[in-house]
Amino acid sequence: MKTRDRILQTSLLMFNEQGERNVSTNHIAAALGISPGNLYYHFSNKAEIIFDLFSTYRDIVGNSMVLPVDRPLTFDDKVHYFEIIFQNMWNYRFLHRDLEHLLKESETLRKEYFVFSSTTVALGKAIVKGMVDSGLVIASDDEIDALMLNLWVILTSWASFLQSIEVQKELPSDMDPWALKRGIYQIICLIEPYATDIAREELPALKAAYLGDFDTDPLSLFRGREKS
Amino acid sequence: MKTRDRILQTSLLMFNEQGERNVSTNHIAAALGISPGNLYYHFSNKAEIIFDLFSTYRDIVGNSMVLPVDRPLTFDDKVHYFEIIFQNMWNYRFLHRDLEHLLKESETLRKEYFVFSSTTVALGKAIVKGMVDSGLVIASDDEIDALMLNLWVILTSWASFLQSIEVQKELPSDMDPWALKRGIYQIICLIEPYATDIAREELPALKAAYLGDFDTDPLSLFRGREKS
Repeated sequence: MKTRDRILQTSLLMFNEQGERNVSTNHIAAALGISPGNLYYHFSNKAEIIFDLFSTYRDIVGNSMVLPVDRPLTFDDKVHYFEIIFQNMWNYRFLHRDLEHLLKESETLRKEYFVFSSTTVALGKAIVKGMVDSGLVIASDDEIDALMLNLWVILTSWASFLQSIEVQKELPSDMDPWALKRGIYQIICLIEPYATDIAREELPALKAAYLGDFDTDPLSLFRGREKS
Repeated sequence: MKTRDRILQTSLLMFNEQGERNVSTNHIAAALGISPGNLYYHFSNKAEIIFDLFSTYRDIVGNSMVLPVDRPLTFDDKVHYFEIIFQNMWNYRFLHRDLEHLLKESETLRKEYFVFSSTTVALGKAIVKGMVDSGLVIASDDEIDALMLNLWVILTSWASFLQSIEVQKELPSDMDPWALKRGIYQIICLIEPYATDIAREELPALKAAYLGDFDTDPLSLFRGREKS
């Protein structure tokens, strides 16, 4: 792997685990066993590393939110979008975890994040409208707006919410996939009331797959991953 | 006002505006025009101030979530709970804004926050079940669980979400009440699909009151407070 890519990979790992504020370029260089000078050859400062990671994240999310052109949208498509988005929000969780601070530090990131969030929410609305057109969902424009904003807040906050639980329970920071699956379960429950009878037939199996053998009770999540 | 109360009031203001990490006990003493020694007479460190503020917040939220004993629950009661909770989550927003960091720093806070979040979610479930008993809401136990967790994530994340928008739009940090009202609108929309026909009669007027003259489109929120 090229040094540049190794710097990005290690930075992402360290930002996620320790929080971006606690990681300096010197820490990153030391973790890689390279000199700070070598790191600065590739990135002139930490903000450049952060922006590069953000750009990759933005592109992955953007590319995953493309409506199929050859067939109508299915409920599985929708869930597939959320899987990709959730997984990437988790992979790049340092961004949403300390977003306000990161945005304050960089005007470039502030401008690009605004474009990213606006575009993603607009694409999300298009996907929900696609589900209305496919007869999977019945919702007025106002309902789609409110649903979309609730979806956005839950999606962007889920990693922080999980991390606050991890800290409370003193769990390791590489939380198991079950907690991400629970996030998708929550999103399915958020959309479920708007599902048509046809879509509803698929939902119990879909929900069961994401819930796994965990309790629906939020308190069981607070207590950690033990089955109640 | 007593010095102790002035310290708490000023700390809360500074933590909310600047972020708790950027405010030291020396900053607080300087802002109050008192000596660090005088501050230490009342609080032996910053963690004690944070814990005192958290305790007040916890008590306000806890005391506000009491079911009426003399009559059945109304939809207005429910909205009233959310008004108080939202307002206090906003008043003490530094807590949820950087929760993971605060919990990492203090075992006392970690333990008490766990009790607080578990208790509040359990009370929230009791309130939603009260609405089922009052014939305002129809929801299965699983639906109540999923709804409650989504409510909790949105409630605890709303202030951070607003602050990330403020930073993007370079708005002043004392955001107007409209943005809190929009949070309540979002919560009403989250519960609306479960409302019975009787409750639904009240909802359009209630939603209109909280939305005010703003656009339902989430993108209008991203753009700031201008009417679109």
